[in-house]
Amino acid sequence: MMTRREANASLAGAALLAAAPALAADNERALPPPRKDAGKPLMQALSARHSTREYSDRPLSDQILSDLLWAGFGVNRPSGDRTAPYWRHIMVIDVLAAMADGVWFYDPARHVLVRRMSADIRAQTGQQDFVARAPLNLIYIAHGERIRDVPPDERRLYASVDTGFIGQNVYLYCASEGLASVFRGAVDTRALGRTLGLAGGDFVTFAQTVGHPAA
Amino acid sequence: MMTRREANASLAGAALLAAAPALAADNERALPPPRKDAGKPLMQALSARHSTREYSDRPLSDQILSDLLWAGFGVNRPSGDRTAPYWRHIMVIDVLAAMADGVWFYDPARHVLVRRMSADIRAQTGQQDFVARAPLNLIYIAHGERIRDVPPDERRLYASVDTGFIGQNVYLYCASEGLASVFRGAVDTRALGRTLGLAGGDFVTFAQTVGHPAA
Repeated sequence: MMTRREANASLAGAALLAAAPALAADNERALPPPRKDAGKPLMQALSARHSTREYSDRPLSDQILSDLLWAGFGVNRPSGDRTAPYWRHIMVIDVLAAMADGVWFYDPARHVLVRRMSADIRAQTGQQDFVARAPLNLIYIAHGERIRDVPPDERRLYASVDTGFIGQNVYLYCASEGLASVFRGAVDTRALGRTLGLAGGDFVTFAQTVGHPAA
Repeated sequence: MMTRREANASLAGAALLAAAPALAADNERALPPPRKDAGKPLMQALSARHSTREYSDRPLSDQILSDLLWAGFGVNRPSGDRTAPYWRHIMVIDVLAAMADGVWFYDPARHVLVRRMSADIRAQTGQQDFVARAPLNLIYIAHGERIRDVPPDERRLYASVDTGFIGQNVYLYCASEGLASVFRGAVDTRALGRTLGLAGGDFVTFAQTVGHPAA
């Protein structure tokens, strides 16, 4: 007998499958290959690393988006391992990109963006005014199913540390490219989780704003 | 009336003061200036980032030690801010370096190492054999006094995320220089804290091994 959750998953899967051919074009956004040779010398990027809370509303180019997501948590070797480590070999963090045209899931294996929502929810990714105007807010999601075996009081800890690794990669990419960023803990993670329709024990850990610095 | 703790601190302070002139030479280790222009292009460092569990016992040069500590959590601007962010503007993490000749505190403001212990405690920084042989194990310590106002159940979380930022900097420096590293949660943090004589609510968050890769 199916549990309600399995039945829901099955229904959702069937719906997705039926709709897939029509959705594919609209709901995926290809990214150019990341420029894996580029960037400032590491120590110069570290010299320039800082947090910024004033952003231009100028959008990010596809190339920057590609580089940034790959730098953050891209696949960097044939094993499928990533630019950032993950605790106990459980790949628990998903990266979502909240932009003016919706919320996108970054699929590292295929290096594409997959649409999750069409709404502009940037304003809900934080408590400061700049989050609504900056072109990109990364939302870090812990995948609850994958840490079911981790004791409950440790889940948030594990997922949060793994997010820190990724967040630092994003900071350094921004420092290297003259972009602005701030990693943010001041997020109403429960409300944001509801907006995103998170289920199955998934939860928001942090958010991180990225954009061009205010002129 | 003094509490026992204040009395201890006062005694320790007096002892330190009396001994300071004689100790200074032995107990501080100067570091060459970090090479702030050096390193591979950032994206190449990200491409090469990985964890390693096999180490040579070859020591690290002073220049590498200097670069590595600065990359991890050095001061990168006149404000005193660092290469890694820290949550809520509370600088909670201290970095200790456990090497064959003892345990050293990294003082980012002066960019020097200050001796904490003379014993070689590398074997106690982790549960795997390689930790005793690798030339350096970083031990990340949360400074309890500075997070007294953070709710108790959040203290470990805050300190752990801040450690993740630093750990990723160390990983990328190692990737850039062809060094080996692994960030480790498998640490008996209580036992290590006792060995280090931690007090005042200070606690170990994680450790990170650094060395040359095994030949």
